[in-house]
Amino acid sequence: MIGVMVPSLDNPVFAEQLQAMEVAARASGYSLIVTTSEYSPSREGDIVEEMLRQRVDGLVLTVAEADNSAVLDKLRLENTPCLLVYNPPGNSSFPSIGVDNRAASADATRHLITLGHERIGMVAGPLLQSDRAQQRFDGYCHAMREAGLIARPLVEMARHTQADLASLIPALQGPDALSAVICTNDLLAISLIGELQRAGFSVPGDLSVMGFDGIALGKHLYPSLCTIEQPRADIGRTAVHTLLAMIRGEECTPTPPAPRIASGRKCRNPDIP
Amino acid sequence: MIGVMVPSLDNPVFAEQLQAMEVAARASGYSLIVTTSEYSPSREGDIVEEMLRQRVDGLVLTVAEADNSAVLDKLRLENTPCLLVYNPPGNSSFPSIGVDNRAASADATRHLITLGHERIGMVAGPLLQSDRAQQRFDGYCHAMREAGLIARPLVEMARHTQADLASLIPALQGPDALSAVICTNDLLAISLIGELQRAGFSVPGDLSVMGFDGIALGKHLYPSLCTIEQPRADIGRTAVHTLLAMIRGEECTPTPPAPRIASGRKCRNPDIP
Repeated sequence: MIGVMVPSLDNPVFAEQLQAMEVAARASGYSLIVTTSEYSPSREGDIVEEMLRQRVDGLVLTVAEADNSAVLDKLRLENTPCLLVYNPPGNSSFPSIGVDNRAASADATRHLITLGHERIGMVAGPLLQSDRAQQRFDGYCHAMREAGLIARPLVEMARHTQADLASLIPALQGPDALSAVICTNDLLAISLIGELQRAGFSVPGDLSVMGFDGIALGKHLYPSLCTIEQPRADIGRTAVHTLLAMIRGEECTPTPPAPRIASGRKCRNPDIP
Repeated sequence: MIGVMVPSLDNPVFAEQLQAMEVAARASGYSLIVTTSEYSPSREGDIVEEMLRQRVDGLVLTVAEADNSAVLDKLRLENTPCLLVYNPPGNSSFPSIGVDNRAASADATRHLITLGHERIGMVAGPLLQSDRAQQRFDGYCHAMREAGLIARPLVEMARHTQADLASLIPALQGPDALSAVICTNDLLAISLIGELQRAGFSVPGDLSVMGFDGIALGKHLYPSLCTIEQPRADIGRTAVHTLLAMIRGEECTPTPPAPRIASGRKCRNPDIP
């Protein structure tokens, strides 16, 4: 049995990863115990303890912050193989499967700069609940500085997947108003686009909005969502195969999957009316 | 431990149900083993057998067709408590949690008729993989006949959550062209709306599109999706509490949750330009 902990299943990025993990695990004769931390670091300890009590053969976890994680500190004293998904490996000493968030986010920012944007911002959920979002913000700041542009303060919203337009409104006003934003996940981007349109803003006329994840739904929308695609199914399958190798006692250094930009039409050159 | 089998986690209706189940189960000291049948009746048997081997305390299943299910026939000979979710209880003899699909779908059809539509069709995935979709089609036919309108043949698509516009095109042509369709799930509706718009159709100008499920994302879209809302989280929580009562040996007749129509703006009166 493999114990899996994801922040939430309401966000399709985790549901799509889990779907692939379940199929791969079943093909190898393993089952998944699935838990959700609801993005709460304090719940992570109880969840992992319970899974260890159930004698899982290995763990696949996405924690709030791999570099500062009580649950990973504890797991270093255990013999149960453990693998991180989406978390940057950092100093955790556990192998991790996921894109290089910093590089992918810098690429996303450069994509908007190439389209002609200069006043670009970033929108995220609670930063302390996601080291991926922290790295994505770093990558954004890096690409802005590299292009001689001013990185704006992060617009932090109360929830990871539901936009609160009021927090963004000040940045959309005045001569320095943003012309584009990158959201740290697709569901947040889709929600923000809906909120903007409901409030009378045009997307991408008034504001280009870019996502991060590449969930299946973004492609179904029209215009499709401009985003950085993380290969969720590949990540899920690789996670299972890597963990099973670890359970067999093999050395593992999983190859990081490559993200790619899906140029949807919710982003456009700000100078072309 | 509770064994859960859903058709797929790529469809948020199951992911959202599972999220609620996981939280409720954990609060009661239970864990979930999660499996996906990928809508394949032939996989259901292997999955359930494996979960029984792991000595789950109970099972929460969504099968392809509860009235004609090899796996349920087998489970009737076992002592493990078993509960259906979304499947109509029918003759299966297992309790089931879910909306009355026939009645909800008739309501959806009446909603479109009240808006002024007469040429209404229904779009679904493979019908044999979902008794819910079969019942929704029955409900649609019933409401059409009741209003003196002609029920059209079901437009059956190859996949449950990805629209194939070519199958629908013939029904959109000629004097008898449809003015509205009901999709048997929201993701199919969202995908169909995208395909229609990509092909130059206006929604709802040329065609009103209604969904079924009420996934969170439909509300985030602008205009929001018109749909029948199944209370997914309530269904998930009720499933866990009912199964735990069954495990304790209590008699259970769960109250069916009430669906409601969420009038999104993807549906409109066909006579108002």
